[in-house]
Amino acid sequence: MITVHHLENSRSQRILWLLEELGLDYDIVEYKRDPDSAAAPESLKKIHPLGKSPVITDGEITVAESGAIIEYLLDRYDTEKRLRPIDGQALLDYRYWLHFAEGSLMPLLVMKLVMMKVPKSPMPFFIKPIAKAITGKVQEKFILPRIKPQMLFIEKTLGEHTWFVGEELTAADIQMSFPLQASSTRMDLSEFPNIARFIKQVEAQPAYQKAVAKGGAFTTL
Amino acid sequence: MITVHHLENSRSQRILWLLEELGLDYDIVEYKRDPDSAAAPESLKKIHPLGKSPVITDGEITVAESGAIIEYLLDRYDTEKRLRPIDGQALLDYRYWLHFAEGSLMPLLVMKLVMMKVPKSPMPFFIKPIAKAITGKVQEKFILPRIKPQMLFIEKTLGEHTWFVGEELTAADIQMSFPLQASSTRMDLSEFPNIARFIKQVEAQPAYQKAVAKGGAFTTL
Repeated sequence: MITVHHLENSRSQRILWLLEELGLDYDIVEYKRDPDSAAAPESLKKIHPLGKSPVITDGEITVAESGAIIEYLLDRYDTEKRLRPIDGQALLDYRYWLHFAEGSLMPLLVMKLVMMKVPKSPMPFFIKPIAKAITGKVQEKFILPRIKPQMLFIEKTLGEHTWFVGEELTAADIQMSFPLQASSTRMDLSEFPNIARFIKQVEAQPAYQKAVAKGGAFTTL
Repeated sequence: MITVHHLENSRSQRILWLLEELGLDYDIVEYKRDPDSAAAPESLKKIHPLGKSPVITDGEITVAESGAIIEYLLDRYDTEKRLRPIDGQALLDYRYWLHFAEGSLMPLLVMKLVMMKVPKSPMPFFIKPIAKAITGKVQEKFILPRIKPQMLFIEKTLGEHTWFVGEELTAADIQMSFPLQASSTRMDLSEFPNIARFIKQVEAQPAYQKAVAKGGAFTTL
């Protein structure tokens, strides 16, 4: 039996969605974030040394890292090869987005979130404007020049076809769903109508909705 | 013919190493970082819309994202299946480290570098101590509690076997080499003797040395 160690409002939402797409039975062990730091609780370290979510166990096997979990589940359970292209440009595109989601886009979104939170943390009132100026500079000089071309490239890709790899859903869409949902809470998506459309489309998928019903209401932080 | 669009002192060093391990012929097109921002030059955008390195072209095919490039090269050219395990726990471990390198470790190292650079950028002298305090807090509260367990887990793994997946080199080692080399310039590795040993071991590989000879002297920023 597959068990998903599911941290609320986290990347593990994607894994529930994938399991629903594959029509698999699974158990969920829920973990709540620390109310102060929003970090995962210590108890997750019993499952995997880093105590990060998602982690799944499948019998004796433990798998961590979203991209690696997705590949494992597809190898083992996507027997009809529905969610991963077999070869050619489609496989290249699938792999590109699988790695891009966590290797390129998500790090910038995490840094953006940290920079947005810094000026809101407790500090003497006369420091606040300086903290705002410094974190604003990091956003302007480092984050924005990198995230803008990425969002434009995603927008263009989603303008060319319904899903990331073509007209059919693949696990690359599942992997990309979390950073794009996260982007919607951290920036104005009005310039990116295809990305906004993609998020709506994801949230309308029956398997996605089943995952939310089982895993609990979901929001990116 | 394979062409590597190689940005100096960057993640593309790994791709040269992999090509040397596979014994392939390839061309290198070199790109210099902007002397002020250390960013990749605009000309890289002609090869791939994001203008990031590494990117390779192989005939009509263009592939970006380190992990995706590695998988592509192995699919196509690692005919003896020397650098990627075929199945079982070894394949799971290979995939874990392939995704972990850019999805977990590298983002923290990049954020650490940005936080280290902020107080060194031009600003009024009376702001500098505040900038140091703010970026120090981000390191202490966000980066360190995440990076420390990751480094300890890597240290433990490399204490158990010579390379990440076992006694033989795999492409997971190639993928992990860059963040570990980068970590050595951003933190004291004296607590992590196995990581220090791994870096020396990497730099002693004949194929790695050939890659440096062709791609030019290499340092992580």
